[in-house]
Amino acid sequence: MTMLQTDFQSLIQKAIDSKTKPVGSLGRIEALAAQLARIQNTLMPVAASCGLTLFAGDHGMALAGVSAYPQAVTRQMVMNFLGGGAAANVFARTLGVDVEVVDCGVAGEPINAPSLLSRRLGAGTANAIERPAMTAVELDKALANGRAIGGDSDHDTACFGEMGIGNTSSASLVAAKILGYPVADLVGRGTGLADDGLKRKQALLEAAAGRTPDSLPADHALMEYGGFEIATMTGAMTAAAGAGRVVLVDGFIATVAALCARELSPGCAANFVYAHRSAEAGHARVLEALAAKPLLDLDMRLGEGTGALLAWPLVQAAAAMLRDMASFESAGVSGPA
Amino acid sequence: MTMLQTDFQSLIQKAIDSKTKPVGSLGRIEALAAQLARIQNTLMPVAASCGLTLFAGDHGMALAGVSAYPQAVTRQMVMNFLGGGAAANVFARTLGVDVEVVDCGVAGEPINAPSLLSRRLGAGTANAIERPAMTAVELDKALANGRAIGGDSDHDTACFGEMGIGNTSSASLVAAKILGYPVADLVGRGTGLADDGLKRKQALLEAAAGRTPDSLPADHALMEYGGFEIATMTGAMTAAAGAGRVVLVDGFIATVAALCARELSPGCAANFVYAHRSAEAGHARVLEALAAKPLLDLDMRLGEGTGALLAWPLVQAAAAMLRDMASFESAGVSGPA
Repeated sequence: MTMLQTDFQSLIQKAIDSKTKPVGSLGRIEALAAQLARIQNTLMPVAASCGLTLFAGDHGMALAGVSAYPQAVTRQMVMNFLGGGAAANVFARTLGVDVEVVDCGVAGEPINAPSLLSRRLGAGTANAIERPAMTAVELDKALANGRAIGGDSDHDTACFGEMGIGNTSSASLVAAKILGYPVADLVGRGTGLADDGLKRKQALLEAAAGRTPDSLPADHALMEYGGFEIATMTGAMTAAAGAGRVVLVDGFIATVAALCARELSPGCAANFVYAHRSAEAGHARVLEALAAKPLLDLDMRLGEGTGALLAWPLVQAAAAMLRDMASFESAGVSGPA
Repeated sequence: MTMLQTDFQSLIQKAIDSKTKPVGSLGRIEALAAQLARIQNTLMPVAASCGLTLFAGDHGMALAGVSAYPQAVTRQMVMNFLGGGAAANVFARTLGVDVEVVDCGVAGEPINAPSLLSRRLGAGTANAIERPAMTAVELDKALANGRAIGGDSDHDTACFGEMGIGNTSSASLVAAKILGYPVADLVGRGTGLADDGLKRKQALLEAAAGRTPDSLPADHALMEYGGFEIATMTGAMTAAAGAGRVVLVDGFIATVAALCARELSPGCAANFVYAHRSAEAGHARVLEALAAKPLLDLDMRLGEGTGALLAWPLVQAAAAMLRDMASFESAGVSGPA
């Protein structure tokens, strides 16, 4: 930290400690408030509005049988998002969060719906078990699409969610290569594979991982194993952070996008708030590598930004604490005896 | 469970599993939704409005030096609640929760404020280190006051918070006697005692505990060691549950009130949702005794209902999930392959 940053950090701490409560008694809400102050560079942080962007894309790997669900579910869930019936919609409505849906490359014909943002890179990625999931040109396009979306928003806080049958497989491979871990350490049941399905998924992902060196930089890992929705989300995270927004990082797949975003644009990590600990097996390993301790642990593993959404009220509470709480002085409350 | 209850439970599970998400993927939100359905006896539970009632009272023990803060702080914080400047106020405003403040027996003269509910049992309890904190008549009055308050509300969900310098000491003693534990197992730093203060608190509470048998029923424990605010909250919890409301149980002191409420009115426990795990040492022990696993763990230890408030959006999300999410059938989404 520079001297100015150190000074500002001690100003923040002083402001928090002046509030009418025992020092430290709001725990992680205090740490979150301090992060918001640093992100917005003010002792009066604002968390007034939040938007959820849902990125959807299909995976060539899904046709090889890495998921419990058929590939058609990606498209069906996009229609469900547009109809407002998915968990992400319901949570967002409850919590006053706006939702937009982006087709990054769902299998089949383009989806014709006025409220859908079409940023298709193709009808799904190539089968990454056998060959690179996307070309360098496609990756650059996906990142650029994401930056445009993440950079253009009226919200002070951004949630990013995803939908794509097969994308826990994609995320496991991308994370394994960036972190240099065996892919087996990062494979989980995804949408709910039974034991034999999990074995099959593990074997397929080990074959996929065997195609390339043990360790890859983020852009190569995305190209080899990523999804169009993961790459677009990565771009969106870098730009949202760059624009000074708080980025609520959802579960396993979003955390892998955050891992990529941190590598591609290191400064952006300061704006990331890890929202929840997913029950998907690989998430704990990636969080550990990032030294990230999420706010919530509710045994969820749905994706769609549902975990990020549930952390939004905590961000609002943290901002309000620092901005609106009385101080011992202003309220005439005595300190410790 | 009766056969009817078993049938209804399986109907709830079927409704949850029909929603467009992998089975079980919303984790504890699903379990919470099922609890709301049981409480409200419907597959369309509602979490539309929440109220926070703050109970304040003083403790004779505080004058013996069990707290880091002077007794005057209870009264000062009541004024802060009325002025809207405390953490509980700020969180409640952020989350759309109404707040009412009840004077159950703050030291000094009655507080003259139109928005304050005056239900005083006296100017603080007696010093429980030496004698019973309150009489049987006072306890009955406090419980009745609480029942009247908890029973009379337009809200479907109730948060209860407390303020009272010395009340972690009171709660530690009440819980120790009900559970038959050594009080030392339940003593913590409260508002922030340093090591020597903690030692002093432990010695005083052991002296207090020595006055009575190792184990007491809840009403005797409240009479010997309780606070007016804790006893009033206990009554409020039983009546709020009895009226079919969801009761969000806050941290250590509120959980001890919940422990009392469960003993005095066993059926009420079905309506309790444990909101957060407090950093106050004794809370983990009481939660364990209740086999309760709170929703949040944010290293908070403020009281005032702040932890209960932060769980309110989770209750809203859970109710909305069961009520509003599309089913696989209604949304035309395929199940597992």
